Amino acid sequence: MSRVPKIKISVIGAGSVAWSSKLVHDLLHTPSLYGSDVYFMDINEERLRILRGLAEKYKSEVGAEYNFFYTTDRKEAVRDSDVVINTAMYGGHRYYELMREVSEKHGYYRGVNSVEWNMVSDYHTIWGYYQWKLAMDIARDVEELAPGAWLIQMANPVFELTTLISRETRVKVVGLCHGHLGYKEIAQTIGLDPARVGFEAIGFNHVIWLTKFTYDGEDAYPLIDRWVEEKAEQYWSQWRMRQVNPFDIQMSPAAVDMYRRYGLFPVGDTVRGGTWKYHSSLKTKQYWYGPTGGPDSEIGWALYTAHQEYWLATLAQAASDPRIPVSSLFPQTRTEESVVPLIESLMLDKPGEYQVNVLNGNAIEGIPSNVAVEVPARVDARGIHPKTGLRLPRKILSLVMQPRLLRAEMAIAAFLEGGRQFLIDWLMLDPRTRSEEQAEKVWEEILSLPGNEEMKRHYS
Amino acid sequence: MSRVPKIKISVIGAGSVAWSSKLVHDLLHTPSLYGSDVYFMDINEERLRILRGLAEKYKSEVGAEYNFFYTTDRKEAVRDSDVVINTAMYGGHRYYELMREVSEKHGYYRGVNSVEWNMVSDYHTIWGYYQWKLAMDIARDVEELAPGAWLIQMANPVFELTTLISRETRVKVVGLCHGHLGYKEIAQTIGLDPARVGFEAIGFNHVIWLTKFTYDGEDAYPLIDRWVEEKAEQYWSQWRMRQVNPFDIQMSPAAVDMYRRYGLFPVGDTVRGGTWKYHSSLKTKQYWYGPTGGPDSEIGWALYTAHQEYWLATLAQAASDPRIPVSSLFPQTRTEESVVPLIESLMLDKPGEYQVNVLNGNAIEGIPSNVAVEVPARVDARGIHPKTGLRLPRKILSLVMQPRLLRAEMAIAAFLEGGRQFLIDWLMLDPRTRSEEQAEKVWEEILSLPGNEEMKRHYS
Ligand SMILES: NC(=O)c1ccc[n+]([C@@H]2O[C@H](COP(=O)([O-])OP(=O)(O)OC[C@H]3O[C@@H](n4cnc5c(N)ncnc54)[C@H](O)[C@@H]3O)[C@@H](O)[C@H]2O)c1
Ligand SMILES: NC(=O)c1ccc[n+]([C@@H]2O[C@H](COP(=O)([O-])OP(=O)(O)OC[C@H]3O[C@@H](n4cnc5c(N)ncnc54)[C@H](O)[C@@H]3O)[C@@H](O)[C@H]2O)c1
Repeated sequence: MSRVPKIKISVIGAGSVAWSSKLVHDLLHTPSLYGSDVYFMDINEERLRILRGLAEKYKSEVGAEYNFFYTTDRKEAVRDSDVVINTAMYGGHRYYELMREVSEKHGYYRGVNSVEWNMVSDYHTIWGYYQWKLAMDIARDVEELAPGAWLIQMANPVFELTTLISRETRVKVVGLCHGHLGYKEIAQTIGLDPARVGFEAIGFNHVIWLTKFTYDGEDAYPLIDRWVEEKAEQYWSQWRMRQVNPFDIQMSPAAVDMYRRYGLFPVGDTVRGGTWKYHSSLKTKQYWYGPTGGPDSEIGWALYTAHQEYWLATLAQAASDPRIPVSSLFPQTRTEESVVPLIESLMLDKPGEYQVNVLNGNAIEGIPSNVAVEVPARVDARGIHPKTGLRLPRKILSLVMQPRLLRAEMAIAAFLEGGRQFLIDWLMLDPRTRSEEQAEKVWEEILSLPGNEEMKRHYS
Repeated sequence: MSRVPKIKISVIGAGSVAWSSKLVHDLLHTPSLYGSDVYFMDINEERLRILRGLAEKYKSEVGAEYNFFYTTDRKEAVRDSDVVINTAMYGGHRYYELMREVSEKHGYYRGVNSVEWNMVSDYHTIWGYYQWKLAMDIARDVEELAPGAWLIQMANPVFELTTLISRETRVKVVGLCHGHLGYKEIAQTIGLDPARVGFEAIGFNHVIWLTKFTYDGEDAYPLIDRWVEEKAEQYWSQWRMRQVNPFDIQMSPAAVDMYRRYGLFPVGDTVRGGTWKYHSSLKTKQYWYGPTGGPDSEIGWALYTAHQEYWLATLAQAASDPRIPVSSLFPQTRTEESVVPLIESLMLDKPGEYQVNVLNGNAIEGIPSNVAVEVPARVDARGIHPKTGLRLPRKILSLVMQPRLLRAEMAIAAFLEGGRQFLIDWLMLDPRTRSEEQAEKVWEEILSLPGNEEMKRHYS
C-alpha cells in the first residue's frame, strides 16, 4: 500500500532555527495537517542537525503525526511540494555587517542599504544581490518542480521579493510578516483589551498605516489622541528608564511624531522607518527610539543578533538535554504567526482572514497594480482574495509610499539589469552623499570584499 | 451683417513679449487663420502697450487680417475662446530670485526648488504655489467660460501643470515646449543635415531621451558614437573658449556623460537636468556645461534674464520707432514654434505631427497612465492622438523618470493638500540637507518673505 501524504510542505532556509522551531511548534499543534510531509532544507548541516534533534524530540513529546525530512538538497525538498516556505538568508548576518562597516568608513551610517523608509538592518535591497538571486532561484525551482505550489515568502525584503517574483515568474507567491500585530501593542499601551479591537493596517510591507482602529466597533482613534495628549510624556519617561527590548518602539516618540506628521498611526516595523530625521546618528535614534536606539541602531542590532544566538543555543541545549522538555520553551497554544493557519486555509479550504503581501491589483487606490502591497485578504482553497478599494491619505501616498516605492523600483531594476550606474545613482539621491566620488569609492570597496566577486561583475 | 470670426484665440500672460512677439509673427504668416479674433491678456498694462504697438505695426506691415484685442480682463479674453494659450508666469523672475537667495543662505545652492532632474531655474514646482494657482484659475475659467476649448500650456512647469490640470479639471489641455528641437543641434554638430534626420525623443517634459535617430532612414546612433570617440574632445576644447550662449549645451560633456551612463542621448532641456553630480557648485556646472555654467548657473541665468530684458527693449523700440520695420527683427518664414501649426491642425483639420505633453494613457510603457508625458502625436480636428507602445530602457525608467516623477507627485500633493510636512520632506530627501532643522529654517524664512502670506497659510 503506497503512502499518500496529506500535503507536502518544504521549508528552505530551515536552519533559521529561531523561526523554524516556531513553525514546528505550530505544525505539531495543528492536527488537521497531521499525516503531511515536511521537508526542512538548509545548506548549513550543523543547524539542520539541531533542528532535527529539536523537532523529533518535540514531535514525540506531543505525539503528533508528521513525516519530517531534513535535507541539504533543495530540489528534493521543493519537488512536488504543495507549499514552499522561503526563510533563507544568504550569507548570514556577519556578511552584511562587513558591508556596513565599509559603508560607515565612507560616511554612510548604518550602511548604504539604509534609505528613507527602509532603515531595517536585515531588509537587504541594493546590496542584497545574492539574497535576491537565492530567492529567485527558489522561485524558479518552484516553477519547475512544483508548479501550482504556493510560495510563502518569509525571507526579507518581503516587499521587493514578492514584487519581483510575482512579476518575473508564474509562481503563486505570498509574503508574510507579523509586523501588523503591532496594533495589539497600541491597544495595550493605551489601556484597551486587544480582543475587542478591530483594525486595518495597509501599505507596503514594513510601511503600513493604521487606516481603521475600533473598540467594540466604535472608532478608537480618539483614544489614541487622548493618550498622546495626556499620557505619552509620562509613559516615555518610564519607558526611557526601562527599555531593554530594542523592538519596544510601537509607542515611541518616533511613532507619535510620525502620526502627527503623516496623519495615521504607523504600525509595527513601520516605526523603524522614516526619513533620516529619525536616524542620522545614534544620538538621534536614541531620542526617537529610546536608550537602545531601536532595533536598527548599532546597539539595538547587536542586542538582537546576540539574542538570536542565545535562543539558538537554548534550543540546541533542549534538543539534546533529556532534562528539558522542548515544550517547556513554548506556549501551550499556537503562536501568533500566520503561516500555518494560512496553509490550512489554502490546503484544507478553511476560509480565514490574513494580512498578506501580494500584487496590488486594485486593492489600494493610487498604487500601481504591479507592486506588492500588504493588505487584509480572505483566503480559501481558491486562493488569496485581497480587499479592494482600500485607501491611504494623499499625504502618506506622496511622502511615504512613493519615496519607498522609488527605492524598491531602483533596487529591482538594479538587480535585473546590472551595471554600476544603479549603485551610483542610488547614492546620488541619498542625503548622506557629498560627492559622486564618495559614492564611487564606497561601492568600489564594498564590491571588492571577498565573496562579492559575482556581485561586482553584475554591477560592472 | 454680424461678423463671424474664424476662431477666437486668447493668450493669457501675453506680456511675455519675447514669446508673444513670435506668436504674432507666426499668426501673421498664417493666412489660413486670417479673420480670427486674438485676445492678448496680461495684468501688466505697460507690457500690453508695448505688445499692442508692436503687433498693430507688424500687422499693417504684413497686411494680415486679424482682430487683435488687448485686455487686462481674463474672463473677457477666455470667454468663448476656441483656443486658450497660457504663457503667464506669476510674480516675475525677481520673485523667485528672492526665494533663491534665502535658500542659498541656508545651504541650498540654486534654491530649494532645484532637485535631481529638475534644475531649470524657472521650472517652479515646490515653491511655485502662486504660479500653480494661477494656472489652475485659468483652467477653471476655461472650464466655465469656454468649455470645449483647447488649453495650450506653455507656462512652466509644463510637466506638473499638464498633469495637474488634466487630473483635476475637464479641460482639454496640451503642453508644448520646443526643447525637442535639440535633435537638430545634435545633427548639426556631428555634421548631418537636419532635414535628412529622423528622430523620436520621449519622456517627461524636460526629461526626454533620443529613442530614435536616423539619417536617410538608417540608424544614425553609430554616427553619434563615432563623434563622441573621435571628435568630442576637440569640439569641447574650442567650445570652452567660445561659449557665450549658456544654452549651448546640447553637445556638452554633461550630455555625453548622461548618454554614457543612461544609454540614450538626452535631448534639449534634458541636458540641464541630472543628479547633483552635475550641479553641486558653479565650478561643477562649469566643468559639465562650459564657462557660463549652463543656463541654470548664477552666471547663465543672469545672462538669460539680461538677454530677455534687452530683447524686450529692442521690441519696444521697434514698436515706436518708424525707422525700424518690425519685420526686420524676424525671419521671413514662421518660427519653429509649434503652437500656431498645432492650432491649424486642431481648428482647420490640417493633420500634422507634433511633440506634445498629454496624459500618458498607454503611450509610454512603464509610466502610470495619469501622468503627462512628452511624446509625438498626430493631431487633427478630432484631437490629439499620441503614439502608443513607446518604450524607454529600464535604466532610464528607474534612474531618471521615477525620481523625477516622485518629485512631481510630491509637488502636486503639496499643492492640493497643503501643510508644512510636504515642504519638510521635500528637503529631507535632498542631498543638500544636513538636518531637519535646516529644512525647517529655510522654509520658515522663505514663507516669511513679503508676498508669501497666502502660501504660508497654505503650508501651515
Ligand atoms: N517575514 C517575517 O516575519 C520575518 C521575521 C524575522 C526575520 N525574517 C527574515 O527571515 C530571514 C532569516 O533571518 P534569520 O535571522 O533567521 O537568519 P539566519 O541567518 O539565522 O537564517 C537564515 C538561514 O538561511 C540559510 N541559508 C543561507 N543560504 C541558503 C541557501 N542557499 N539555501 C538554503 N538555506 C540557506 C542559512 O544557513 C540559515 O540557516 C531574513 O531574511 C530575515 O529578514 C522575516
Ligand atoms: N514652453 C516653452 O517652450 C517655454 C519657453 C520659454 C519659457 N517658458 C515659460 O513661459 C513662462 C513665461 O516666461 P517669461 O520668461 O516670458 O516670463 P515673463 O515674466 O517675461 O512673462 C510672464 C508674463 O505673465 C504675466 N502675468 C503674471 N501674472 C499674471 C496674471 N495673473 N494674469 C495674466 N498674466 C500674468 C506677467 O505680467 C508677464 O507679462 C514661464 O513659465 C517660462 O518658464 C516656456
